[in-house]
Amino acid sequence: MYGAEVEKILKGKGISIGDNVKVKWRNSAFEGQLMPRPDVGDENVIVLKMKNGYNTGFKTLEIELIEKQKTTEKPSKTETKSNLPQISIIATGGTISSKVDYKTGGVHMLMNAEEIISTAPQLKNFVSIKKILNPFTIGSEDISFREWTKLAEITAKQANESEGVVILHGTDTMHYTSSALSFMLTNLSKPVVLVGAQRSQDRPSRDGVMNLTCASIFSTSNHAGVSIVMHGTSNDDYCIAIPGTKARKMHTSRRDAFRPINAKPRAFIFPDGRVEFKDEVKKRSSEEVKADTSYNPKVGLIKVHPGSNPEIIDFFISKNYKGLIIEGTGLGHVPTQTLKKEDSWIDWIKKASKEMIVGITSQCIYGRTNPNVYSNLRLLNKTGAIHCEDMLSETALIKLSFLLGHDYERKEIEKKMLENTAGEINKRITISEFLN
Amino acid sequence: MYGAEVEKILKGKGISIGDNVKVKWRNSAFEGQLMPRPDVGDENVIVLKMKNGYNTGFKTLEIELIEKQKTTEKPSKTETKSNLPQISIIATGGTISSKVDYKTGGVHMLMNAEEIISTAPQLKNFVSIKKILNPFTIGSEDISFREWTKLAEITAKQANESEGVVILHGTDTMHYTSSALSFMLTNLSKPVVLVGAQRSQDRPSRDGVMNLTCASIFSTSNHAGVSIVMHGTSNDDYCIAIPGTKARKMHTSRRDAFRPINAKPRAFIFPDGRVEFKDEVKKRSSEEVKADTSYNPKVGLIKVHPGSNPEIIDFFISKNYKGLIIEGTGLGHVPTQTLKKEDSWIDWIKKASKEMIVGITSQCIYGRTNPNVYSNLRLLNKTGAIHCEDMLSETALIKLSFLLGHDYERKEIEKKMLENTAGEINKRITISEFLN
Repeated sequence: MYGAEVEKILKGKGISIGDNVKVKWRNSAFEGQLMPRPDVGDENVIVLKMKNGYNTGFKTLEIELIEKQKTTEKPSKTETKSNLPQISIIATGGTISSKVDYKTGGVHMLMNAEEIISTAPQLKNFVSIKKILNPFTIGSEDISFREWTKLAEITAKQANESEGVVILHGTDTMHYTSSALSFMLTNLSKPVVLVGAQRSQDRPSRDGVMNLTCASIFSTSNHAGVSIVMHGTSNDDYCIAIPGTKARKMHTSRRDAFRPINAKPRAFIFPDGRVEFKDEVKKRSSEEVKADTSYNPKVGLIKVHPGSNPEIIDFFISKNYKGLIIEGTGLGHVPTQTLKKEDSWIDWIKKASKEMIVGITSQCIYGRTNPNVYSNLRLLNKTGAIHCEDMLSETALIKLSFLLGHDYERKEIEKKMLENTAGEINKRITISEFLN
Repeated sequence: MYGAEVEKILKGKGISIGDNVKVKWRNSAFEGQLMPRPDVGDENVIVLKMKNGYNTGFKTLEIELIEKQKTTEKPSKTETKSNLPQISIIATGGTISSKVDYKTGGVHMLMNAEEIISTAPQLKNFVSIKKILNPFTIGSEDISFREWTKLAEITAKQANESEGVVILHGTDTMHYTSSALSFMLTNLSKPVVLVGAQRSQDRPSRDGVMNLTCASIFSTSNHAGVSIVMHGTSNDDYCIAIPGTKARKMHTSRRDAFRPINAKPRAFIFPDGRVEFKDEVKKRSSEEVKADTSYNPKVGLIKVHPGSNPEIIDFFISKNYKGLIIEGTGLGHVPTQTLKKEDSWIDWIKKASKEMIVGITSQCIYGRTNPNVYSNLRLLNKTGAIHCEDMLSETALIKLSFLLGHDYERKEIEKKMLENTAGEINKRITISEFLN
């Protein structure tokens, strides 16, 4: 709530939070969406979210004119509120589901529908929130298989009871979680959308509101699958939906940090409600979603480099690991015909392959591994290691954990590692899918 | 050499290898650069390199017209051959310095000036090759500190005796080598250019010729520093020069796989000889280049992930490692307040920090680490680990090895890790430096 005087002016003009308004201030006109008063905001300063994505405050005393703008963009759904599709929201922690409390300095969780809607008033135009759950509250750097198991179970249940599920998540490992859910949710017949924020709610460049709006819109669209929905560009123009097994956080701080790797974005989603699909999608259905949460946590990851010590393989053998992903160089190389014989990884990978399944990915990130081009690659191929096609290291790690949690024979797991089951392998990468 | 009959026709028209020619074939006209006859080529089929970068063969019997085109692009340097800048070429192996011999199936090294020039006839318009050296021949996946030491010494000597040095290198670890040379070459007053090829010489989409041409051109330009020169786009339009400490191979197979990370490209280089600088560069001078090849190979790299086992730290402690780079998530996180206490990395990093220097980078690749945003980051900061600004993990690894090879006190190394010495830290990353 703004101050009493401001609220009176707004009421007199028929303006509510979320409306597009025009103000005239110091001989210039400004247009933007009226935001709720920030926690630490002056009660006499109204805040507009401008088209460029930034919030700007205007002292009401200095404003000459404030008037409501026609919102041609807004669909008439506001009138048919009761018919809006019902979605479930699962809050797990992270920047998106928190705001900084300036009085205590602590982080305050947004736990109920009202609080979340108050940060994103547009939401009420598109969805009706059936349920908000909060199974745990952690920064995503602390998430792991135990949380994924719980999350998969809750998500399956919610997917069966609503039109779609939106999961609020910290961004650090959101792509690991989206991979885990992609494998764990079987028979997935609804949209499951992970969404986060790169900037906290109190910053002018905050992205959580638009991300949440777009994620909610996408969770009601006609498709089925796990996606990450985040800013498509560094502006507030649209969000992209990225397939859960093909997403990666590619920047520490930018709002458009999440990118599709070796895949097209699934869709562009505009905050006015439009969804433009950019790739083929599975259509939604009424099939019952199930959670298959078996996994084996004994899967390791090694990134090789010049001079890297292959003896580290013994660490994983001694700890009884059952799987290992090695991030090789280029097409999937490891140091092979090195000057000093003890620097070669070949004999060590042979040894590891006897105890566990070894998958090779590429630290290039983009592109496909290929075990047949060079003689060193053919040597590596003979060790029993599997080159994991165009799979991300992160996705390969989780897929291998998932497969090893099941009662499959070794040969079956090796075969399944190279079969596309949840969008993780793309047989036809096109030229536009690089750095996009 | 083509067949006698073809050579006679070419001679009659005054056409030599490397000339732009026009042919008329089946009622269509084609223009391209006359290439030397491929090893396995029909002696009666002339090969033109078309504008799109692909080689096309034409049976001379079927050609109606072949004529030489005016080459407006070509500078008049061909006339002043003796005044061309002298460069040194160092061949280390990799796709660029080899060609497949179809008769034996083996790989044939291009060891002398004539052979290299014959693959890139344009070269003679721009440079005079003073010396070609071949200190070792390996795939770049097998390179390590021992080779870098040798390479730095040879490069320093050649830089002092010529206008610039071009190093032919396999692409897998070319960015590790460019980092190593950036730190090891002190007083660097000349251009040192690493160049490779993503496609072998016998493929229509071969990129080595244009890369080598552009690398040679760039090695004669007015700047000093270590760069990687490779295709700027997937077409044959121009190459980019990337600062040696800010380069990364970002695709397993594309010709434009090498990209600048958190930095601008140093220059665009066109195969007609033009160099457009895109960032400030140090100018060349006559200062004596020196090689400082001290290093400590006992530096490890760990990429953390959900469920990653921090006990691996003990492996590096037991092997007497002196440095460790941890690729964290997001702004530089590690699993901290995990559900199971034994999954937390904090106490382990504290333990490691007592024995060695621990640097934290980000697996996001782009962007800067920041130890002060979230409470988990502040906990990590207290362990003694250093967040390595916007440095690439690969660069941080090599920088730490280099610093640990010198007689510095611990505090001095920690301080130097956060100081920019060879372009490895960029204080002002601009918005265009993402996925570029």
